[in-house]
Amino acid sequence: MSNSQPIKGNAVIGQSGGPTAVINQSLVGVVEGLAGSPAVGKILGAHHAVSGIVKDDYIELQDIPSERLERLAQTPSAALGSSRDKPDADYCKRILKSFEKNNVRYFFYIGGNDSSDTCRIVNELAKADNYEIRCFHVPKTIDNDLVNNDHTPGFASAAKFVAQAFIGDNLDNRALPGIKINIIMGRHAGFLTAAAMLARQHDDDGPHLIYVPEAAFDLDKFKADVAEIYGRLGRCLIAVSEGIHDKDGTPIMTKLAATVEKDAHGNVQLSGTGALGDHLADVLKDHLGKDTRVRADTFGYLQRCFAGCVSQTDAHEARLVGRKAAELALSGYSDGSIAIQRVSNKPYEVEYKRIELTDVAAKTQTLDPKYIVNGNNIDASFRDYIGPLVGDLPVVESVRVH
Amino acid sequence: MSNSQPIKGNAVIGQSGGPTAVINQSLVGVVEGLAGSPAVGKILGAHHAVSGIVKDDYIELQDIPSERLERLAQTPSAALGSSRDKPDADYCKRILKSFEKNNVRYFFYIGGNDSSDTCRIVNELAKADNYEIRCFHVPKTIDNDLVNNDHTPGFASAAKFVAQAFIGDNLDNRALPGIKINIIMGRHAGFLTAAAMLARQHDDDGPHLIYVPEAAFDLDKFKADVAEIYGRLGRCLIAVSEGIHDKDGTPIMTKLAATVEKDAHGNVQLSGTGALGDHLADVLKDHLGKDTRVRADTFGYLQRCFAGCVSQTDAHEARLVGRKAAELALSGYSDGSIAIQRVSNKPYEVEYKRIELTDVAAKTQTLDPKYIVNGNNIDASFRDYIGPLVGDLPVVESVRVH
Repeated sequence: MSNSQPIKGNAVIGQSGGPTAVINQSLVGVVEGLAGSPAVGKILGAHHAVSGIVKDDYIELQDIPSERLERLAQTPSAALGSSRDKPDADYCKRILKSFEKNNVRYFFYIGGNDSSDTCRIVNELAKADNYEIRCFHVPKTIDNDLVNNDHTPGFASAAKFVAQAFIGDNLDNRALPGIKINIIMGRHAGFLTAAAMLARQHDDDGPHLIYVPEAAFDLDKFKADVAEIYGRLGRCLIAVSEGIHDKDGTPIMTKLAATVEKDAHGNVQLSGTGALGDHLADVLKDHLGKDTRVRADTFGYLQRCFAGCVSQTDAHEARLVGRKAAELALSGYSDGSIAIQRVSNKPYEVEYKRIELTDVAAKTQTLDPKYIVNGNNIDASFRDYIGPLVGDLPVVESVRVH
Repeated sequence: MSNSQPIKGNAVIGQSGGPTAVINQSLVGVVEGLAGSPAVGKILGAHHAVSGIVKDDYIELQDIPSERLERLAQTPSAALGSSRDKPDADYCKRILKSFEKNNVRYFFYIGGNDSSDTCRIVNELAKADNYEIRCFHVPKTIDNDLVNNDHTPGFASAAKFVAQAFIGDNLDNRALPGIKINIIMGRHAGFLTAAAMLARQHDDDGPHLIYVPEAAFDLDKFKADVAEIYGRLGRCLIAVSEGIHDKDGTPIMTKLAATVEKDAHGNVQLSGTGALGDHLADVLKDHLGKDTRVRADTFGYLQRCFAGCVSQTDAHEARLVGRKAAELALSGYSDGSIAIQRVSNKPYEVEYKRIELTDVAAKTQTLDPKYIVNGNNIDASFRDYIGPLVGDLPVVESVRVH
């Protein structure tokens, strides 16, 4: 940290990776945090993230009236446009070139751990070039997989969607009994899939089984697990993470298709296809008999940007991490990432701390093993962790004698 | 109609077919409408619809306190349990036998056109048997496909889910451009798929293409349609009804699998699988190049029972059709179905009319051809029809210069 006056120049904000329901809260948080500072000239939105920066494709944000900013904050998805590009050192040099050309002295990159790594590389290149700049990573990911963070903005709203979907689907499955599989996003981290447990309000409510990527998935055990529940309750509701893999680490998804699509990061396409759910449904029909009613839904992209399903805690925190990043940059810190850390649970209270970019870059947080029960479920204690993040959920009533 | 005193006896209420977000409103509406009548003894919920009736499996509802009834009304899915059974004359005789045994003089069946047919058959058998009973059909279906109804309870809440999903997904597709296909429920009627058009707030908002079962689906035209939009906008968001079929009436779904599952009505399984979306995505990748980003989501069961996405108009109307049925039964009508008919649009106003069971039984309403544009879209005028049903939707803001 330096105690000198804030450096004078323009600011760039980018939104990277998969959008969320609250990533525009963070965008507006940064804009608000910078607004009024005599050090900051233009506030430039990077159109489609780093891919826009290297083309000098910017959108001016400093003159947007506050009531429009408020509506923007409440709008899901990334208003600036996003990108899946993962810049290497050469790409980062082109980013720095654009910054120098446009006198950009403040860079805020809202995204997951890849985005914090981009901040880190740009910052190091700038130092080597003697170009003074403030590089801040603002956390965002529905996967909730950033290390040194209690949780990340975007996760709780996606978790709320998953929970509300399961509340309704549990009642649907109760009304027309059968086996129902729901596939939930999450390549390496099972937090979002685990959120399905919030749907349990009564003893025999589903999800009855929850499979996360942190536990090796075994098809025979899966069949036996489902047969046991189905035999006992006459129905079975199952939450499955798209990222489940076998004991050797091979994603179950890759076993299904001869050719699977891969993205720029070399990752197999998991979302935007119903293949995994359909495959598991076929496996169960083979095992339990063709007349067994087995259905599979893949929540897909709905869970990250559904309009009108936002955790208020998530929205609030997403706004504040943006403001905090702006505040720290203006107060002289050269770089960092904003981490949400939980101070107390009852009452729920968090603090927004600056951590080093290297503390979060390119690392993946996964579910604490203490929450995983028998490789096929999530412990009730997970509710203490996730409950305050998601907030109130619809309460359901039944005609059964209480 | 007779003007005699209401016949004395017990009442049975059943909930049939696919559940909705507001079918418990109708259940509670009937209970409220019957409560306090000296003619009505027990109010019995049929556990799992007709399949419970023939087993004398009833749940007593008359003593549930009003605040619990209110929570029940707001709970999605069918609280009594549902059934896919479609009773024939023999089955209906067993229903009548249970009614006679339990002195049931009032029967309210909440469901689609199959349910109204069940009411009709039971009523005719009772007349032939000189057993006095009141048989009322209470409308419910997210498909919105009942004739002589402006619309049906359950539809507007499912339509609200579809609209909110598309609002978010349109912004998601804008942030990370590509081709996105969303598969929506609807075997013969495209109302729910057409509801996706509510997501359009700006000129280039998706869905850019909408395919409903009322228009023959041609794969070559589909490929050309998508290529044109994708070439022009760099992205394309598509709404596809699960029930699309070719010019000969063969569902596209049946062309995909050698063996497809069929239900008791002989219908091919359309929901609970991602096969149609995945197939269409593969077709587009083949046509536009393997590097084209094409994704498909199948909304599946989420759209009918999602907790926390309910049209207030829908909830209100679902309650009132239940009350109206009870009122008419107590006032001496021997049978009928309650139809919602629109009196005026501005201000939106409806009336609840008794129609004959034969006016609605076993017939299917489809989209007025005037709403279907070029076989691949829905006209803007559809908003006048559906807008008042769905109510306010989240408004989105952009960073673009207005």
